[in-house]
Amino acid sequence: MRLTALSEVLPGAPVTNRDMAERFGLHEKWLERMTGNRSRYFCDPAAPDGTPRTTGDLATAAGERALRAAGADPSSLDFIVLTTASPDELMPATVNTVADRLGVNDIPTFQLTSGCAGALTGLYTARALLAGGLRRGLVIGADTVVKLWPSERDIQQIRPAELANFALFGDGAGAAVVDADDDGPGFVVEHMLLRTTGKGRKPAQVVRWYGADGAPLVPAPDGSMVREPMSDEDYKAIEEHVPGLACTVLEELAAATKWRVGEVEHILPPQLNGAMTEKIRAHMGVTAEQAVSCVADTGNNGNALPFIQLNRAAQRIADGTGVGGRVLVTTIESSKWIVSGLALRHRPAGSADVV
Amino acid sequence: MRLTALSEVLPGAPVTNRDMAERFGLHEKWLERMTGNRSRYFCDPAAPDGTPRTTGDLATAAGERALRAAGADPSSLDFIVLTTASPDELMPATVNTVADRLGVNDIPTFQLTSGCAGALTGLYTARALLAGGLRRGLVIGADTVVKLWPSERDIQQIRPAELANFALFGDGAGAAVVDADDDGPGFVVEHMLLRTTGKGRKPAQVVRWYGADGAPLVPAPDGSMVREPMSDEDYKAIEEHVPGLACTVLEELAAATKWRVGEVEHILPPQLNGAMTEKIRAHMGVTAEQAVSCVADTGNNGNALPFIQLNRAAQRIADGTGVGGRVLVTTIESSKWIVSGLALRHRPAGSADVV
Repeated sequence: MRLTALSEVLPGAPVTNRDMAERFGLHEKWLERMTGNRSRYFCDPAAPDGTPRTTGDLATAAGERALRAAGADPSSLDFIVLTTASPDELMPATVNTVADRLGVNDIPTFQLTSGCAGALTGLYTARALLAGGLRRGLVIGADTVVKLWPSERDIQQIRPAELANFALFGDGAGAAVVDADDDGPGFVVEHMLLRTTGKGRKPAQVVRWYGADGAPLVPAPDGSMVREPMSDEDYKAIEEHVPGLACTVLEELAAATKWRVGEVEHILPPQLNGAMTEKIRAHMGVTAEQAVSCVADTGNNGNALPFIQLNRAAQRIADGTGVGGRVLVTTIESSKWIVSGLALRHRPAGSADVV
Repeated sequence: MRLTALSEVLPGAPVTNRDMAERFGLHEKWLERMTGNRSRYFCDPAAPDGTPRTTGDLATAAGERALRAAGADPSSLDFIVLTTASPDELMPATVNTVADRLGVNDIPTFQLTSGCAGALTGLYTARALLAGGLRRGLVIGADTVVKLWPSERDIQQIRPAELANFALFGDGAGAAVVDADDDGPGFVVEHMLLRTTGKGRKPAQVVRWYGADGAPLVPAPDGSMVREPMSDEDYKAIEEHVPGLACTVLEELAAATKWRVGEVEHILPPQLNGAMTEKIRAHMGVTAEQAVSCVADTGNNGNALPFIQLNRAAQRIADGTGVGGRVLVTTIESSKWIVSGLALRHRPAGSADVV
């Protein structure tokens, strides 16, 4: 499998920590220290037509950009895969409205429910579909958090530590066009791994959805009844397990490709937030020059992130700022626990393999 | 790909039209005439531990049963695919909690957001994963409607035609163990098709999800503000398009397998409700003896249905009540529009192909 083009889409203008602090009544500096993030992007549900407002809008835009970058007509696609944790509706699957908007018909579509390992789950699925005889696909990752936001009323009742969660996340999408044919420019897949891990370990991230009545009331520690929180994060568990798991993935990719980690030009660490990603990078023994990280500026937009990181690695290579074209991607999903990794070798246009 | 075992799980006791009529203040006979369904099954959220209460519970039970029927240990699985329109949470993907409960670790998992074409989308994905080198997988379809039910308060405001929708649906799960190795007993895949159709045609089924605040208020035809309905169904569009699409799928399967439709022993028509499935069956030229249909008794449990139909076809073959072992499956998703079909040939234990 070869990734022939990549794309990223971030809606609107960056939302700064000052913007967030004002909205939530928090301290800007505290928010920055807690998350290590400088900004994030949000869809505006009241934006005019043509501006992304939903996961499907972002996914469509990312798909269009990737197809344009690949010089590929939508009619040349044999399948579309969308991975997301925030579909527009339960039915129809968002991938099918996206396919329609891309002008695509008569092909199989797949929407995978995933989080941080979503992009690699999508690419793994795409590789299987190509192995099964299809020739070209579009793989999209997209997420939006707007439906998960507490109402103005609920914000008053939420503790600062919980509110800081909302400062982690953001909206975005990314995509890749993938070809079965390895001959040509782009990123050729050298190795891929994807598997559940930590059997019996409880999820460190839960995101709920509700019916017409919304969240039920649940007892608070003080005995009062409060609305069930839409999401829970167990940062202690994430801090305890993710760095080690990221090292495991990196070592496994290095062993499979026979590349020395110290010599690999572009290494994509897991993206939780700016602070934790920096810790993980250091723990992995990856230098700041090798690392391709974007979460501190984009916010954690889940299924979009690895595509955005890949897009930025591709830009580094195109700009000549990155020497050589080996890429190792590590993503860890903590909800429930999944390790995934991807090794890519860049092939410039009109040349043989370059290392 | 060979389906080595099948399973079905229906929670609790059948819920009759009389039960439904009492609950919703409707007429039993009207409900029966509207839907053609006699019963359906629902998870009881207040049921004791060990009784299925959620999509994940049903999926786990269906997976366990299929593995037991296949005589396969969970540790022999190379992957799990779950297809559903009603996940327990947005995160973690329900497939990962199911994998954990099945005692499975270190394998890739996939959760596909699908409706009526879900089971075949899951099997299509499984076939690709097997083509990519994996050897054995578990494919599960499961759905529950409990989170979609209107509150007692809202029931008062809903028109009978809308309430009848709730009488269509039900909870359930089904599963198949699939092997890459075609030599052995079970159902060997002879042909499979899956593709979007009807570009530009709007979805005939929408099911929404909400955040903590629940459904927003929207204007009613009389100008008053009412809660947005969680689901919309366009029965006119379904009635107009599904019978013809089902014929197309059947013809395409017959052409690919060179089987004469009139001679095929087991034909699985699309399952919307008892009344519409009967119309579609007649339109397809399928006899009542050939048809394997269960929706009138199970209710429409979405992603579970084709597995339950297949399980019943397998029972017919095992009982000797069905002569021969050719199976054609047709499923049409109207939300958004997807056609899918599957041709299977049954291989009894210890014998060559039997037609």
